[in-house]
Amino acid sequence: MTLAATLARIAADMGRVAERGRPAAYIPELAKVDTARFGIAVSPVSGEEAAAGDADVPFSIQSVCKVFMLTLALERAGEALWRRVGREPSGDPFNSIVQLEHEKGVPRNPLINAGAIVVADILLAGRTPEGAILELLAFVRRLAGDETIGCDARVAASEARTGARNRALANFMAAEGNLRHPVEDVLHVYFHCCALSMTCRQLAAAGRYLAAAGYAGASDPVVTPERARALNALMLTCGHYDASGEFAFRVGVPGKSGVGGGILGVVPGVASIAAWSPGLDSKGNSVVASQAFEALARETGWSVFGPLAPPG
Amino acid sequence: MTLAATLARIAADMGRVAERGRPAAYIPELAKVDTARFGIAVSPVSGEEAAAGDADVPFSIQSVCKVFMLTLALERAGEALWRRVGREPSGDPFNSIVQLEHEKGVPRNPLINAGAIVVADILLAGRTPEGAILELLAFVRRLAGDETIGCDARVAASEARTGARNRALANFMAAEGNLRHPVEDVLHVYFHCCALSMTCRQLAAAGRYLAAAGYAGASDPVVTPERARALNALMLTCGHYDASGEFAFRVGVPGKSGVGGGILGVVPGVASIAAWSPGLDSKGNSVVASQAFEALARETGWSVFGPLAPPG
Amino acid sequence: MTLAATLARIAADMGRVAERGRPAAYIPELAKVDTARFGIAVSPVSGEEAAAGDADVPFSIQSVCKVFMLTLALERAGEALWRRVGREPSGDPFNSIVQLEHEKGVPRNPLINAGAIVVADILLAGRTPEGAILELLAFVRRLAGDETIGCDARVAASEARTGARNRALANFMAAEGNLRHPVEDVLHVYFHCCALSMTCRQLAAAGRYLAAAGYAGASDPVVTPERARALNALMLTCGHYDASGEFAFRVGVPGKSGVGGGILGVVPGVASIAAWSPGLDSKGNSVVASQAFEALARETGWSVFGPLAPPG
Amino acid sequence: MTLAATLARIAADMGRVAERGRPAAYIPELAKVDTARFGIAVSPVSGEEAAAGDADVPFSIQSVCKVFMLTLALERAGEALWRRVGREPSGDPFNSIVQLEHEKGVPRNPLINAGAIVVADILLAGRTPEGAILELLAFVRRLAGDETIGCDARVAASEARTGARNRALANFMAAEGNLRHPVEDVLHVYFHCCALSMTCRQLAAAGRYLAAAGYAGASDPVVTPERARALNALMLTCGHYDASGEFAFRVGVPGKSGVGGGILGVVPGVASIAAWSPGLDSKGNSVVASQAFEALARETGWSVFGPLAPPG
Repeated sequence: MTLAATLARIAADMGRVAERGRPAAYIPELAKVDTARFGIAVSPVSGEEAAAGDADVPFSIQSVCKVFMLTLALERAGEALWRRVGREPSGDPFNSIVQLEHEKGVPRNPLINAGAIVVADILLAGRTPEGAILELLAFVRRLAGDETIGCDARVAASEARTGARNRALANFMAAEGNLRHPVEDVLHVYFHCCALSMTCRQLAAAGRYLAAAGYAGASDPVVTPERARALNALMLTCGHYDASGEFAFRVGVPGKSGVGGGILGVVPGVASIAAWSPGLDSKGNSVVASQAFEALARETGWSVFGPLAPPG
Repeated sequence: MTLAATLARIAADMGRVAERGRPAAYIPELAKVDTARFGIAVSPVSGEEAAAGDADVPFSIQSVCKVFMLTLALERAGEALWRRVGREPSGDPFNSIVQLEHEKGVPRNPLINAGAIVVADILLAGRTPEGAILELLAFVRRLAGDETIGCDARVAASEARTGARNRALANFMAAEGNLRHPVEDVLHVYFHCCALSMTCRQLAAAGRYLAAAGYAGASDPVVTPERARALNALMLTCGHYDASGEFAFRVGVPGKSGVGGGILGVVPGVASIAAWSPGLDSKGNSVVASQAFEALARETGWSVFGPLAPPG
Repeated sequence: MTLAATLARIAADMGRVAERGRPAAYIPELAKVDTARFGIAVSPVSGEEAAAGDADVPFSIQSVCKVFMLTLALERAGEALWRRVGREPSGDPFNSIVQLEHEKGVPRNPLINAGAIVVADILLAGRTPEGAILELLAFVRRLAGDETIGCDARVAASEARTGARNRALANFMAAEGNLRHPVEDVLHVYFHCCALSMTCRQLAAAGRYLAAAGYAGASDPVVTPERARALNALMLTCGHYDASGEFAFRVGVPGKSGVGGGILGVVPGVASIAAWSPGLDSKGNSVVASQAFEALARETGWSVFGPLAPPG
Repeated sequence: MTLAATLARIAADMGRVAERGRPAAYIPELAKVDTARFGIAVSPVSGEEAAAGDADVPFSIQSVCKVFMLTLALERAGEALWRRVGREPSGDPFNSIVQLEHEKGVPRNPLINAGAIVVADILLAGRTPEGAILELLAFVRRLAGDETIGCDARVAASEARTGARNRALANFMAAEGNLRHPVEDVLHVYFHCCALSMTCRQLAAAGRYLAAAGYAGASDPVVTPERARALNALMLTCGHYDASGEFAFRVGVPGKSGVGGGILGVVPGVASIAAWSPGLDSKGNSVVASQAFEALARETGWSVFGPLAPPG
């Protein structure tokens, strides 16, 4: 079966899933998206991309953007970044503040909200908030090779209005001296990065560098192969909040989820994958997109954790 | 450079490391081991095994045994095991009791002490404590293809005498109804499993099934390829306690450490690796064995997180 | 209205309370006590004692005994005791283990289980377990002026069988070096102290020294007035676990509750009070005995927190 | 010895204390106050007030104001206030956010920062921020019988600038739905209340209603005797953050401390006491003012926990 046929069958199967979760309720723009939606796209390192379902419908990538933010911040700040953010799984929900108090304002990793807020602070260095946002947007467009990607200003504005818990996290870290810029500027950048609007096809293309030793497109070295590995390691151990172990166990590839219902997955050396369906489980991960990843892994045998047959 | 030559060079380099950590202090048998010791062995899926340094000196494998215990318990209890143990990284030290109180006596994962105590309880089902220990020993001998592997009774006795914190964990879980057998019987099994004495060469051989789609030796299917994957996923996310993210980030392969100073690593489809040096860091992981894993990964390029060059 | 009449009316009112809580379920001897039971007794510093209801029915005083244990241990160890136990309210349930991990095995205060286990360890110094138990029993008999008070061996045996959580606490503290004697010996003392069986009348008499500047009976100085004050302060801030603030707010006198349904209260300079009813609330405090204390405080105006009318 | 002579001697003794702690460092106005300062004043329920040392030097009362804020808020909202704030000691530092996450944004009690921020939100109901501040100021002036009491706007402005941790607390509670007004308005009120500037003499006078069955001055019933009792109970169990048990144990009367170095104490039925010295211990309580309270309690015998001699 071709990859395209496999994706088509998965899309058909996913259309029949009854229990689809609930969309994120806290902002109107996310709450009103139809949970019947499902899209999937794969961007292989070699070969043609394939897609199925609502793969060309834009959605709010939300926390998936933390991967791109981190990539850009590491290019800027280098390993010094790790003095301000850890790289251990958190064992807590995405927006927990408890851990920050125990560890003096240093978030466990850059893929939870607190960590990504520190990353936003790093992206702000030497820039205006608008400048920082535009640079991140330009970076994601370069990764995806698509200049039409944009940021949904209404989503960002809604987040700014309702984001009291993120504001709490940011103020807490500011109190501990782990933010360099004004809290509202940092949050402005953070909320706008999370408000990027992309299709599955665009997201899979944008994430392809993580599968392709750091190369975007055929000949654009975005990061070194070693850094691509490091980013994949972080996604595998920390990409699904306190369900990261579960995704590693069930799917077996690095992944990052967002409350918009999107998940970006990476099969190192092979392909990047984006799936989307707006309904979430209790931990904030897409119910149907997770199942699609499980089905795809089963069909293709993709996993970082070993072959399906002994050698010889 | 051949694998043997690479290991020899690493062993030589490791001999020059000045800061080697301290051996586990809580029992005399571990405390008195010389931190100058270092051994390493690799058991490839295809090809000849190689080793260097003190690769034939037996040491106490301690928590590395949790991988074998879990493998055997899963063969017995199947997926029902996961009703009694989670599979998320813990974010806490190996012997923390805090999480148990929040989650009603269900440990975060089977590779921390509390989780392995539940696994020991499962291994006891329908057996005497001695019977359960002998079965585990027989299983590890089968994995390694080596009938000389034994259990150090003095180590087990010392652990039983000094293991108040593990006794606390076990009693806490018993109070929450998550142990089926008498606490002292469960601990007896647990302490004896941890007291297995193996060389690097034996340990690498024993762990080879995890790299070889579940096959021990050439033709002994121990577990399904899917289960080998699942075990590797658990090792990657949970194998180094609250430094699991760090090992994934720096080394990039599934691994499990023990306070005896041993680390078992798995390069899926390629090889299993055992390294040992008795000095520990503040999180209970071997300082020099960790560095050896980093060096070996650098030299060989082994990692589950992607190729070092783009395709084509 | 005389004190006797007040108590009689309260006993009558308490008989009509519909929602009476549930008896402690974890040991048969406590679980089977009828929640319709209610007794109350007051032992004034000056004047005649009074009682009503089931004031002469013996019950298991359980954690109320921690006050007598602490009193005796302080007489022995003096202020050095406070190096091993804190004196702050815990904000946690009576049997929580979480705090111990954060504070290296030093319990928050001597009136929670962990703290009383350390106190039991102090009572054991230089004695056999049986000797320590007999001394505590002799001390309580002296306080109450009643040689018939005994310990219910069946209750102690049941606690020993079912006390896995207390065994967890004790082992945890042993692991941190905060117990001097074998865990099982310490628990043996602890369980037997908790198994003291007393009537309300006996309990009120035994606690009278706390109201009477340290004097038991007319002329038996048990502790200094300063120590009586200190004990009352601890009871007020820590005597009802994580409902201590509530008892202070609603009743306004130092008190100590037990899962047998008893509460000992102290009106400094005025009287000691014992009330009992076996049904507990979710925090392990007697529902009806608490209400009786509120009613008695309302009727008599007793409180340490101020007069009911301005001066002059 | 007269009360005045006692206070004079205490002031002289306190002048000789070598280890005086450090002033709060986070805002310039507090950091620069001389730790040599010490003042004390007592306002008896019957009889003449007395004072010594720097009893007429104004200082920033900071968290002591929480008592007055709570008194006013209870008069407004009545017992409904307790649906939004608990009344248990916290076992955590004054500005901890951890507990809020476990209890869905409901602070443990109204005398820690989070709780007082909720109280500020209640004081805002139906008022502008300036109106709410002026009302609280008018209330404190009425309590003290002194129209010259004011608020130090520079202190409030400094707190607004540096108060990131309080801003974190407020935003966290807003996210959980436990604030009704805009976070910045609530904080504006909170910071200005904490910035009240008073002398020991004024503070002792203002707190006198707590000792005098709710009466300010001779004939101004501010609260009912029952409410005065309830406020005293809260001060005793929660007034010194995670050193509340210690103050109850050592001093034995309800008290409330502030990071300005002031402590208000209440001897129910007898007197109110204010002491001040700017140096703080590690828990944020004045070192020397605490010692002065201990000395005064020793000299006078004042305590709510019992007489110093048996009756008769």
